Amino acid sequence: MTVKIALWGVGAMALRMADMLLDRTGVTIVGAIDRHPDKVGRDVALLAGRPRGCGVAVSEDVDAVLARRPDVVLHATDSFVDAVAPDLHRAVEAGANVITIAEEMAWPDAADPVAARALDAAARAAGVTLLGTGVNPGFVMDSLVLALTGACASVRAIHVGRVNDLSQFGPTVMRTQGVGLSADAFAAGVADGSVVGHVGFRQSIGMIAAALGWRIDRIEETRDPIISDVRRETPHVTVEPGMVAGCRHVARGYRDDDAVIVLEHPQQVRPELAGVETGDTIRIDGAPSIRMASAPEIPGGAATAALAVNMIPRVLAAPPGLATMADLPIPTAWTVLDPKPAAGRDA
Amino acid sequence: MTVKIALWGVGAMALRMADMLLDRTGVTIVGAIDRHPDKVGRDVALLAGRPRGCGVAVSEDVDAVLARRPDVVLHATDSFVDAVAPDLHRAVEAGANVITIAEEMAWPDAADPVAARALDAAARAAGVTLLGTGVNPGFVMDSLVLALTGACASVRAIHVGRVNDLSQFGPTVMRTQGVGLSADAFAAGVADGSVVGHVGFRQSIGMIAAALGWRIDRIEETRDPIISDVRRETPHVTVEPGMVAGCRHVARGYRDDDAVIVLEHPQQVRPELAGVETGDTIRIDGAPSIRMASAPEIPGGAATAALAVNMIPRVLAAPPGLATMADLPIPTAWTVLDPKPAAGRDA
Repeated sequence: MTVKIALWGVGAMALRMADMLLDRTGVTIVGAIDRHPDKVGRDVALLAGRPRGCGVAVSEDVDAVLARRPDVVLHATDSFVDAVAPDLHRAVEAGANVITIAEEMAWPDAADPVAARALDAAARAAGVTLLGTGVNPGFVMDSLVLALTGACASVRAIHVGRVNDLSQFGPTVMRTQGVGLSADAFAAGVADGSVVGHVGFRQSIGMIAAALGWRIDRIEETRDPIISDVRRETPHVTVEPGMVAGCRHVARGYRDDDAVIVLEHPQQVRPELAGVETGDTIRIDGAPSIRMASAPEIPGGAATAALAVNMIPRVLAAPPGLATMADLPIPTAWTVLDPKPAAGRDA
Repeated sequence: MTVKIALWGVGAMALRMADMLLDRTGVTIVGAIDRHPDKVGRDVALLAGRPRGCGVAVSEDVDAVLARRPDVVLHATDSFVDAVAPDLHRAVEAGANVITIAEEMAWPDAADPVAARALDAAARAAGVTLLGTGVNPGFVMDSLVLALTGACASVRAIHVGRVNDLSQFGPTVMRTQGVGLSADAFAAGVADGSVVGHVGFRQSIGMIAAALGWRIDRIEETRDPIISDVRRETPHVTVEPGMVAGCRHVARGYRDDDAVIVLEHPQQVRPELAGVETGDTIRIDGAPSIRMASAPEIPGGAATAALAVNMIPRVLAAPPGLATMADLPIPTAWTVLDPKPAAGRDA
């Protein structure tokens, strides 16, 4: 059996996924959906930078692509449940399993429990599985943390820090992180919602709390400007000394007055110019306590695409309904999509 | 429903598990099996250091304990498949799910594929699940590594190092690691098999290779003495300068002439006296490459007991048969054993 994959949204992330899929056996790309006029009609493999096409052109005809009966739709169009829910319903109702990198779909209850329930019901009715994943939310600040708690008899508190580099990103990310603004403009942007920071803290806190059986009474978020002492320049933005190089976004999940889950995510351009090293740090206070750190950070773009592709066999094997990264077996890298026997089953 | 647990083997590890279980709701200890005359007849909770008993006395009557129909047997008697297989068959055939910390059971094919197949068949016939777990093998050098590969599009090679401290262990571990020997006696012990080093490399390599779909042509192991420059003393052993403080055991899994999985585990007493810091280091060479390190190491005893207990809900939810840590959803710490709804299912 060859697993048929459709891409819905053919941006940079989907093209990384396509590149991975083209190297694998047991899977084939059967369609790609996007409305952008620069993409419609073009071969997905060529868009992904491969020297030869794969014979699948980007189409804006959703029904025509879904009529090819993909086993899995890899969905990458937007961050928010309400924005993606109509697409997800359409794919699920066409009988496709769906893996989306919409950040809020990693734990959709946090954003919209009614929409989450409706998506779960639709997936169950269609006999398919729907999963939200990505590097964060979906991995570094939640499912990887949960995997580490597996070695703990008890857990009192969790702290995760992720220091990353935004230099590779374009104007949209610069705007939503407030990069290049004055401190005053940054504060105004936080107040009016145009400086967003990270999308995913509430999802990660929700996933951790549910898995550990923790009650969280409230979540508080702060967004502070990272004011640069030095000039920092990328192809998309120039930050003069005294201006904002990024957003230090922190979320604290409280039980009573204790911040039992603290997630810190300072994101900025050219951190190395300020002597800042990037990396992920997970601290679990418990019995035993665990401290793990990666340096540099697990890279966002590459890891999000990899997680989406690597979850394909897990989603194919999962029971119908809305799943989370905490429900499914650990993802692993794979190159050949061919269900492997477990230990002892056909040694 | 209250989940009924029996302990088989009431050593230090099982008593840690008992201590965890006594703090949890939704589970109850219904029996404990051990033949040691110092333990038979004694209350498990008192043996675990609790101030009050739990009403369950250690028994040497295996049939009587299994007749209490435990849902899960936590098995902790020995390291080797051939030593534990009769017990595991007996528990499985009595209708109990089994979680064992026998190192070789983390991936029993590596030691005895025939025994693994028979255990799988017995578990399937009885409709129960059998899992081997522990900190290593079972976690640090395999399932945690696999979880990290989930963020990789491709993996070329894996290197894991675990530097730990043996000071807390007694005479058996000192002997099997060669602690306190002369260099010559250590070499003789390696040659005659009395210096064992770590049990689990072949299991970890097997689990990683199967999950990644890698062919491994051969595994080479080396056991070298860690000669101490300083005097090191524990309650169980004294190491004079020039004597062996531990065993640097390394396994390399080769594909053709490439060591694609390298696992290093130098174990010694009082590493701090030689300026050695303990810790776990995972390096995945791939796209992207990932480096994660914990310092100090994830502690062996505490984590092994925690993993065994934390896998209880996963094993209860798993399909029948022999499972591995790579097959089941990520373990998480839990305190209340009460299957939690997934996201969106009853928000």
